[in-house]
Parts: sequence; C-alpha cells; structure tokens
Amino acid sequence: MALALGDLIAELGGELHGDPAAVVRGLAPLESATSADLSFLSNPRYRAQLRDSQAACVIVAPALLDEACARGPAIAVADPYLYFARVTQLWKRKVLGLGMVPGVHPSAVVHPDAVVDPTAAIGPLCVVERGARIGAGTELKSRVTVSERCVIGERCILHPGVVIGADGFGLAPHEGAWEKIEQLGAVRIGNDVEIGANTCIDRGALADTVIEDGVKLDNLIQIGHNVRIGRHTALAGCAGVAGSTTIGAHCTIGGRAGLVGHISIADHVHISAATVVTRSITKPGHYTGVFPLDDHAAWEKNAATLKQLHALRDRLKALEKNRP
Amino acid sequence: MALALGDLIAELGGELHGDPAAVVRGLAPLESATSADLSFLSNPRYRAQLRDSQAACVIVAPALLDEACARGPAIAVADPYLYFARVTQLWKRKVLGLGMVPGVHPSAVVHPDAVVDPTAAIGPLCVVERGARIGAGTELKSRVTVSERCVIGERCILHPGVVIGADGFGLAPHEGAWEKIEQLGAVRIGNDVEIGANTCIDRGALADTVIEDGVKLDNLIQIGHNVRIGRHTALAGCAGVAGSTTIGAHCTIGGRAGLVGHISIADHVHISAATVVTRSITKPGHYTGVFPLDDHAAWEKNAATLKQLHALRDRLKALEKNRP
Amino acid sequence: MALALGDLIAELGGELHGDPAAVVRGLAPLESATSADLSFLSNPRYRAQLRDSQAACVIVAPALLDEACARGPAIAVADPYLYFARVTQLWKRKVLGLGMVPGVHPSAVVHPDAVVDPTAAIGPLCVVERGARIGAGTELKSRVTVSERCVIGERCILHPGVVIGADGFGLAPHEGAWEKIEQLGAVRIGNDVEIGANTCIDRGALADTVIEDGVKLDNLIQIGHNVRIGRHTALAGCAGVAGSTTIGAHCTIGGRAGLVGHISIADHVHISAATVVTRSITKPGHYTGVFPLDDHAAWEKNAATLKQLHALRDRLKALEKNRP
Repeated sequence: MALALGDLIAELGGELHGDPAAVVRGLAPLESATSADLSFLSNPRYRAQLRDSQAACVIVAPALLDEACARGPAIAVADPYLYFARVTQLWKRKVLGLGMVPGVHPSAVVHPDAVVDPTAAIGPLCVVERGARIGAGTELKSRVTVSERCVIGERCILHPGVVIGADGFGLAPHEGAWEKIEQLGAVRIGNDVEIGANTCIDRGALADTVIEDGVKLDNLIQIGHNVRIGRHTALAGCAGVAGSTTIGAHCTIGGRAGLVGHISIADHVHISAATVVTRSITKPGHYTGVFPLDDHAAWEKNAATLKQLHALRDRLKALEKNRP
Repeated sequence: MALALGDLIAELGGELHGDPAAVVRGLAPLESATSADLSFLSNPRYRAQLRDSQAACVIVAPALLDEACARGPAIAVADPYLYFARVTQLWKRKVLGLGMVPGVHPSAVVHPDAVVDPTAAIGPLCVVERGARIGAGTELKSRVTVSERCVIGERCILHPGVVIGADGFGLAPHEGAWEKIEQLGAVRIGNDVEIGANTCIDRGALADTVIEDGVKLDNLIQIGHNVRIGRHTALAGCAGVAGSTTIGAHCTIGGRAGLVGHISIADHVHISAATVVTRSITKPGHYTGVFPLDDHAAWEKNAATLKQLHALRDRLKALEKNRP
Repeated sequence: MALALGDLIAELGGELHGDPAAVVRGLAPLESATSADLSFLSNPRYRAQLRDSQAACVIVAPALLDEACARGPAIAVADPYLYFARVTQLWKRKVLGLGMVPGVHPSAVVHPDAVVDPTAAIGPLCVVERGARIGAGTELKSRVTVSERCVIGERCILHPGVVIGADGFGLAPHEGAWEKIEQLGAVRIGNDVEIGANTCIDRGALADTVIEDGVKLDNLIQIGHNVRIGRHTALAGCAGVAGSTTIGAHCTIGGRAGLVGHISIADHVHISAATVVTRSITKPGHYTGVFPLDDHAAWEKNAATLKQLHALRDRLKALEKNRP
C-alpha cells in the first residue's frame, strides 16, 4: 500500500518538487494528513491549512507552489482537484488493486432474452429483465433491477438498489377511482452515467425516458416517466423530477430539489438544494427558493405574519397614498 | 405489432369516423405521432396540435369531432383520456402480448407459513415473510419485501424494491438514549393498490397500518406506522406521511409533499407538490405551502428580509397609528 | 397469547393495583383498547381518554394513579412510555415468541473475506461484500447491502433495502464533463444503531463516514460521504445529510429535513420536519424553516408578494423617513 511520487508523476503528469523516490501510503485532506499521506489544496480559501499540514506531499496550483514548497514536497498542476480525482482512480487500481470484474454473478437473475455485454459486470442479486441491454464496461453493483427493454450504455455504474424501468405513475380518473395507463415506453441511458443507491428511473408511457451521456445521479433520486436529462447534468441526493420534464445539459440540481412535471429547463441552469421548480427556466443562471432557517420561536412569528403578507402590502400601499 | 381500428372499437367501444380496416402500429402523443400511430386529445388546450398532427387516427371528445374529422380518421368518445388508458391496456395485452405470469419465481424466498394465492405472481428475488398473505391476481415485480403477517389484497402491483412492513420508528427516550418500541402491528393493503419502486410502508406499533382499496402510491414514498390512507387516494413520488396520520378518500398528494404525524386529512383534499402539512385539514380543497422559485440573488434579499417580517409588520402598524 | 399482570410486574417492576392473576391478551392505545388489553397513558393531555377506556389495565405515572384506580386496575411507574416500550419488547419475546435467529440465510451472498459474528443474523437476499464486518447480535433483515470494508457494530438492526457503503457523490468538473473521484473510505457504524428501510449511507472519499453508538435512522434517509452523526441522535424518515457534515450527539432531525454539506451541528439541536439547514448551528435549541400551509388561493397571493418583500421593506423605510 504505497506509491512512489515519481511513479505518480509518470502516470498522471504534473511538476514534482521533491524526491521522486519518496513514497506515500495514503491520501488525506490537508488537516488530517499524516507525514505518510499525499494531500491537495484545490480551494485557495483553505491555504491557511497548507502551512500546518503534516502531509508528505501536497498537490497545488502553480500560484501556490512557492507557499507549498516552503513547507515541503509539492506537485504543481493546473487543476489540483481534477488531478486529485485521477490520483484516487490510480490509487484504487494500482495500490488497492480494486476494479470491476466482468461477468454475471451466479446469484443474479438475467433473463435469457436480455443482452449483457461480456465486459459488463452484473453483481450479486441483480435482476435484468427480458429485452434489457447492458453495454460494455458497465457495472451493476448489487441488487439492481433493470426492467424489460431498458437500455444501459457503456461504462455506466449503477449502485445497489437502483430500479430502472418501473412503471411511470400514469392514471386516468374514472368515477372516483383510477384507471391504469400502461407504461409502454422504456428507459434509455447513455454512456458514462452513474446512478446512486436506491435511485429510481421510471419507464416512459409511450415514448422512452432518456438519460443522456455523462449524467450523474446521486442516491434516492426519483426520475418520472418521459423525463429527459441532458448531457453531463448532475443531480444530488433525494432530488426528484416529475413526468415529462426536460432538463438541459450541464445543469446542476441540488440535493432534495424537486421539479414539477411538463416543464423545461435550459442548459447551464443551477438549482439550489431543496428548491422547488414550478415553472420552466429558459435562461442559464442560479435559482433558489428555500425558506430560511431560524430559531423556532422567530420562525413561528414570521411564518404567521407571512400568511398576511399580501394584506400587509395593501396596507403599505394605503399609507403611501395618504402620504402628505 | 398492429391493430385494426375496427378491432379496437369492437373491444372498447367509441364512434369511429374512418375505415375500420385501417391499422395502427403504435401509440403516440399528437406532436410526435407518425402516420402509423393512434393518438388522442384529452385537454382542449392542446387542440392546436390536432390540426398539424400526422397521426393515423385521433381519439377526441364529441365537441372536437368536426375539427378532428377535418384532418382525418377519428374516434369520438366521452372521455378521451380514460379511453386512451384502456387502449394502453389493450395494446399491452393484445399487441405486445405482455401480462402477468402467475407463480413464484424460483429465486424468490417465500416463507412456508406465508400464503400466496395461486393466481398471484412473485417476481425474482422477492421476500415474503412468515404469515404474510398475497391476494389473487397480485403481482410483486422483483426485489420486493413483504414482512411478517402483512396482508396484500387482490390485483395489486408492487414495483421493485418496495418494502412492506419494516418496523415503524418507535422510540422512547431514556437517559439520553433510545429504547426500542417493538412494532407489533402489521400492514394491511386493500385491493387494486399500486405501490411504486422503493416505496416503504411501515408496520404498526400496536394496531395495523392500513392502505385502503384503490390507493396509488408512486416511487420512493415513506408511509409511517399506523397511518391510514383512504380509498382511491393517490400520492406522487417522494411524498411522506409520518406516523398515525389519517388521510381521507379521493385525495391527491403532490410529489415530495410531507404530512407530519398524528393529524387527520378530510376526503377530497388536494395537496400541492412539496407542501408540508403541519396540521389537520377538515375541509376539502386545494392547499399549498412552497417557497416561490426566484433567481438566487433576488431570493437572498427576500429571504433575509423574511427573517424580519414580523418586525416589519410592527413598524407598519406604528406608521398606521401615527397617520395624521 | 396472554400475559398475567403479576408476571409482567415480576419482569419489569412497577406498582400493580389490581389482581396479579388477571391476564391481558393484547396491547392497545387507550381509545381502542378492549377489556382484554393492557394500555398506557404517557401524555397527561390525553387523561380524558383514561376515564372512558375499556382497557383491562392501564400503565400510568404516580400522579395519575388515583384517577386510574377509580376506573380499574393500574400499574404505576415513573415513566409510563419507557415502561410501555419494555412491555412491547417483553410481549414480542414472551408472548409472540419472536426474535432474531442467528445465522446466514442460504439465499444471502456473503463474501468469503467478510467477517460475520456467529451471533449475527443475515436475512434473505442480503449482500455482504469483501472485508465487511458485522458485529455480535446485529440483524440484517432482508435485501440489505453492506459494501466492501464497511463495519457494523453490535446489536444493530438494518431494515430491508438498506445500502451501506455505496460510493459517495464525488466528482471533479473537467471540460464540461465530470471526472469520478473514487471513494476510498468506508462506513463505520457503532453499536445499537437502527437503520430504516431503503436508507443509504455512503462510503467516505478518503476517510470514513461515521455513525456513532445509539443513532437511530428512519426509512429512506440519505447520508452523504464523510458525514459524522453523534451518539444517540435520531433522524426521521426522508431526512438527508450532504457530504462532510457533522451532527452532534442527542440531536433530533425531523422527517424530510435536509442539511447541506460541510456544516457542523452542535449537540442537543432539534430540527423541525422539512427544514433545510444551510449553515452551521453552534447552539443547542429548536430550529425551523418551513413555508406555512395555506389554502392555495391565499398562498398564491402571499407567495407572489414574497418576491417583492425586499422592495416592500424599502418602501416602508421611505415612509418612516417621511414621517412628520
């Protein structure tokens, strides 16, 4: 469990200021790194931590190199956070020797009419239904369901408990009860998509639900039927997107955010955590709608007053009219 | 994969204006339908799409029949959306040849003391615990758990990952720690209930948690212990109902809405998406409580001011008093 | 299915006013108890129910003993709710004869390099991955995943669908796409922790995600990577905690509440249901931030005005300046 700094540089590039034969035995944040750990500084706000860090070596941007070298060994790279991401990948592969093992676990239930690429990995107790297709290099971790006719692209990761292709929530009211609208579409997922634990993506009613290349979904997310999510958009945990909504490319949707159905979100839109999006958004930007936290007693007063807000506005107007 | 319009009418009724021998090969929304597709118009707001649609045939209400016939073949029915729902059912059964296959999948784990109706279908990797009962015509899709002594009625559908009858969250505080209250009740689910993927319904503490006939639950919903949900009520994705709350019949609860515990909701109440219900509702109606979406900078200003709202009201009052 | 009151007292203590040979055949709340049921009154607010209850015997605090005895048999104890919790435990064990059965269910998939204590119970269709460790007396109900190298302490209960140790949501932006940060840490869970159905706890990026002793998590909760939750803190259903946030000991987090990442919450903090915590909280107390429920038409007016709130404040200020 060790990596020489020289070997790291040989694999990933970067400008080493220090002994290439020196080894690191772990990766750690600046504040907890020991003298055996490699660390990194990506946000200049935390530069105060640099001086005091015990890290064996620190990855920094060129602008902070002098500061880092005053402390000890350093690697200068244009984007320390990206470089660090690649170090974690290298570490997993080379130092820990971990990686995907292609093949279908004997406990998985794969329908004979499903197509699983021989380089894909289907983990323990997964279910792949009739007509489903799993692309090259894709990994279903454990207890994942991919329903009938759903298609997963290449190099995707589906974490435990994911459900792809359950029926969308389609109901027609009839004499006080609900008539089921059978969900005849499927789910199509592009390449390089990662889907977090227990996240659900429903199949379309007529056409398909579509997740484009490079989309990243965290845990416990709900994607309704006929949603389309554009390339490289990321949704944080517990987000939800109701049916027939379209999200553009390169968006970020914060944790617990919710989008109602049948709306359209432009590219490069950023939604804050826990915000509810009730209308289409046509312009890139950062949007928020969250009740501010307060101590409970203060909240009670303000919340009660909020229910009279429109009336307060009218009273203000009246005062303004009567202004001498 | 084709259906003659005449056969459709023979099965489902409706007034055909067009050639009964003409066949349709798919179902599609008006705007994307090709000349081989059957489509429908249920909301008069979208009548503009009717004229331009390429659909082979369109299902419409009698009031729009002339308009539809000016374009091509049409089927007139009193409720086009309901009719369309039945078309999807027919399509699944007759054209796609899909349907439930009764029996227990060999990978499912069914306790010898559970009772599964011979016409029920228990899918791959489901768990049915001791004393549980699964009614006639009910389908557990895959990876569903039905815990000890829980009862599922007839013609229900439980989607992948559903958990029926996990312990309710019952804890008594004791010297800074929590003492478990064993959950001795069960879950009773009526007939014609549909439960979405990864939704959880907890068992009752003493009495049972009850889901009445015809209730529809979307994905990732949490139903606490001793909740009762009345007939034909529908909850959209990510909704949550805390313990001992009662919801009446014929309600709709929007996605991500949350109800606190120990309250009671009347029949015919409609709760908007993401609304938090903190008190009982005794009158039918439409209720909402959501922070409105705004661009982030505007939200920041308004949210900060909101924390002074009660004080602003007092200042307004003072001005009113001093009015000349 | 019966328990003599004298046997109950012998096991759990308490002061019986009534015949020790009398038997109870069920446990029930005051309002629904039959003359065969044992009941309890923990909240003096419900004392009116005491008089009318049909219960065979009622557990009460000493202050209510006279009132209870005027009605019939009673057990006086210092903390009736705690006592009732212990009655449910006794009932489950002695009357229903239910309890954990140690061992690994034959349908579970346990990696040969995982360590499962012989007194632990691994239920049907669970997955325990390489290097994971399950402590003494811990129960995994059914369909639980414990991923590589995650450690579960003693006497824990993990309900169906729980996912421990899926990858945290770690991504570095790169040229419009996302580079994966491999999650090299694990999850460490202390003793006496209960985790609700379909709840997810992600593994840490570098260091571990930590759940301390006695923590109670309800269903469908999301715990991000590198979160730490202090001893005896309880989170209700659908709560979410984003990455690297620390919650102190003895906190309660209401259902659907959300905490953003990289913040710190002191001990003894109580967060109301559905509140979003966007900053650190350094003082014990009760905090809330929820949009108040209203009928939809009233909400619409107030929500629209809320978007002008800051401007209203400025207009109020202007009026105040011009006051004669």
